[in-house]
Amino acid sequence: MIEKTNALLTKIRQEKPLVLNLTNYVTMDFVANGLLSLGASPVMSKAEQEMEDLISIARAVIINLGTLDESFIKLCALACKTANQLAIPLILDPVGVGASRYRTNTSLKFIHDFKIAIVRGNASEIMSLAGAAGVTKGVDSTAASTEALASATFLAENYGVTVAISGKTDVIVDAKQTAQFEYGSAMMPRVTGTGCLLSAVVGAFHAVEQDRFVAAAAATLFYGICGETAAKQATGPGSFRSAFLDALYTVVL
Amino acid sequence: MIEKTNALLTKIRQEKPLVLNLTNYVTMDFVANGLLSLGASPVMSKAEQEMEDLISIARAVIINLGTLDESFIKLCALACKTANQLAIPLILDPVGVGASRYRTNTSLKFIHDFKIAIVRGNASEIMSLAGAAGVTKGVDSTAASTEALASATFLAENYGVTVAISGKTDVIVDAKQTAQFEYGSAMMPRVTGTGCLLSAVVGAFHAVEQDRFVAAAAATLFYGICGETAAKQATGPGSFRSAFLDALYTVVL
Amino acid sequence: MIEKTNALLTKIRQEKPLVLNLTNYVTMDFVANGLLSLGASPVMSKAEQEMEDLISIARAVIINLGTLDESFIKLCALACKTANQLAIPLILDPVGVGASRYRTNTSLKFIHDFKIAIVRGNASEIMSLAGAAGVTKGVDSTAASTEALASATFLAENYGVTVAISGKTDVIVDAKQTAQFEYGSAMMPRVTGTGCLLSAVVGAFHAVEQDRFVAAAAATLFYGICGETAAKQATGPGSFRSAFLDALYTVVL
Repeated sequence: MIEKTNALLTKIRQEKPLVLNLTNYVTMDFVANGLLSLGASPVMSKAEQEMEDLISIARAVIINLGTLDESFIKLCALACKTANQLAIPLILDPVGVGASRYRTNTSLKFIHDFKIAIVRGNASEIMSLAGAAGVTKGVDSTAASTEALASATFLAENYGVTVAISGKTDVIVDAKQTAQFEYGSAMMPRVTGTGCLLSAVVGAFHAVEQDRFVAAAAATLFYGICGETAAKQATGPGSFRSAFLDALYTVVL
Repeated sequence: MIEKTNALLTKIRQEKPLVLNLTNYVTMDFVANGLLSLGASPVMSKAEQEMEDLISIARAVIINLGTLDESFIKLCALACKTANQLAIPLILDPVGVGASRYRTNTSLKFIHDFKIAIVRGNASEIMSLAGAAGVTKGVDSTAASTEALASATFLAENYGVTVAISGKTDVIVDAKQTAQFEYGSAMMPRVTGTGCLLSAVVGAFHAVEQDRFVAAAAATLFYGICGETAAKQATGPGSFRSAFLDALYTVVL
Repeated sequence: MIEKTNALLTKIRQEKPLVLNLTNYVTMDFVANGLLSLGASPVMSKAEQEMEDLISIARAVIINLGTLDESFIKLCALACKTANQLAIPLILDPVGVGASRYRTNTSLKFIHDFKIAIVRGNASEIMSLAGAAGVTKGVDSTAASTEALASATFLAENYGVTVAISGKTDVIVDAKQTAQFEYGSAMMPRVTGTGCLLSAVVGAFHAVEQDRFVAAAAATLFYGICGETAAKQATGPGSFRSAFLDALYTVVL
């Protein structure tokens, strides 16, 4: 897996795939910076008028529901429809699913109505999406990734998605296989947008690797190692954030 | 005060209270990161549809008027009404009051119409809110905190709010008492959102301490010491920002 | 030019001109922090209701089309009209022009309908704006600055604007003169918003220097040297971003 991940990393840095992000307002800056550090080319949009133009030049589209409202949902639906038509892969990040029925219902609608390639979330979110969750507290997870395994399998089997569950243990699940990684750092959940950025990085890997499971696994593995690398130089979440962006730029496995 | 502050800090780090932020687009990232560094759990929203769900699990609600418009004001009014009904404390940050009549009028409407626990602003903003200000320049203060003392007392007596005035001297005022602190760093106003984040930190302290005056004073004291700690390691506003987030995570008084 | 730039820098740090930014959601935080580091006073707004109040106290208005939609375009048109009436200089940053027809058409409408002082963009954007471009990939440039020279001259002659083209070579063009600088760092395009922030810095320089060509050239020269200074301390885009904000604060030429 290390060798494959490295090959994909090189491909991203050479091809600089354009990744379109329909994403929340909180972590836009971090997501854009992370994609640039990685070597991909981020673009953000909030206009229906340019959706087709942008998707036609994008190689992955990220739908992140972190700060959703009616007009954003409408925009995302148009983007999903267009991406499906043009066969551009869709990554869904169901931020905070379970914290409000609005988030849960919206996320469910997206996996029902469109062909999503990969869903990336924390354990609470994946469990909520599968209808198995207890109480979610806001946007942070209260469950371990392995607890969400059955939920992820349910989603994979019923909606044909690959699921990436992030946490202390990272788990990648599709209908036929599972991968687990133990990389990463306890600093990662102390920086806002580390989940959002991973979803975008998964998109960048899928842009250069057709196999969704491999793309999600390679992105997750790489991301975790970047977390470990950054943690060695950090004295808190502020210095970690900076060191993590550096790691996305410098790390070779 | 130091001992009390330390006890509240420990409580925040243990209980990780959910703080809901209806806030401006400029400093969302910094506010979310600051709350995470502190040990609280931030959530942001822009949808009426999920306001009740989110407020019912939140322990403080921050209303920050930094980039207001009609739909945002409507959302904030709903949030204030719901928070008052559910007895969740409201913190108001009247960013840039005095710079435009729109900001002044909106802030006044909020303190009139809803039960706000704590108003946090710089001297210019507090003076404008009390109708005593001269010219405000944008969102930065042009007056010293102590000049705003009479204005803060007026607001406390007429609207039942606790007022936290931030500046070189930090002043906490309610109808019956006053506290002053001289902590902090000249770097703080050179980083956007240090005021916004303080409002959110005040909310996190109020989430674990019922007495609003004590919560506002403890948050302000802690915040100022974090500023001093960060300034020792900073060579400019960029490194200060990073060191300040680290300090929120590491500082014990 | 070095001496003139230094004098303007001192003037900005003394006068702290208010710079109003109607700008995209992705890089707002970085733009506000950069202006504060420089010594200017940033304000952001998204409300028509306060446009006249804010523009009347601003000394430059930045229009940045990074995340445009219909309501934002309407807001910008009002701001441009008001700024023209009050003779406050307008800086236009046509982010991603060429990547979608929506961006191209909107940018063209602004330079047609209003008196823009300075247009700042990368080579792809300037070429697209002049109708000379091939394919633009998202918001990153695929052409060298010098390739955009004819396009910039065309814009300068037909719309009376000064054009600042950013890239490895920075080129400043108006109808009668050209300046070129070779400062900067390869790290700059790896941090989101370095272009947006330069547009705002150009605005801050124009706030204290009436001659638009001199203002754009001085801002660009200073900015490039800050990039070089920051690069010496950076190990990747994360540490570069932090060091760059420090440089805006500390650099004296």
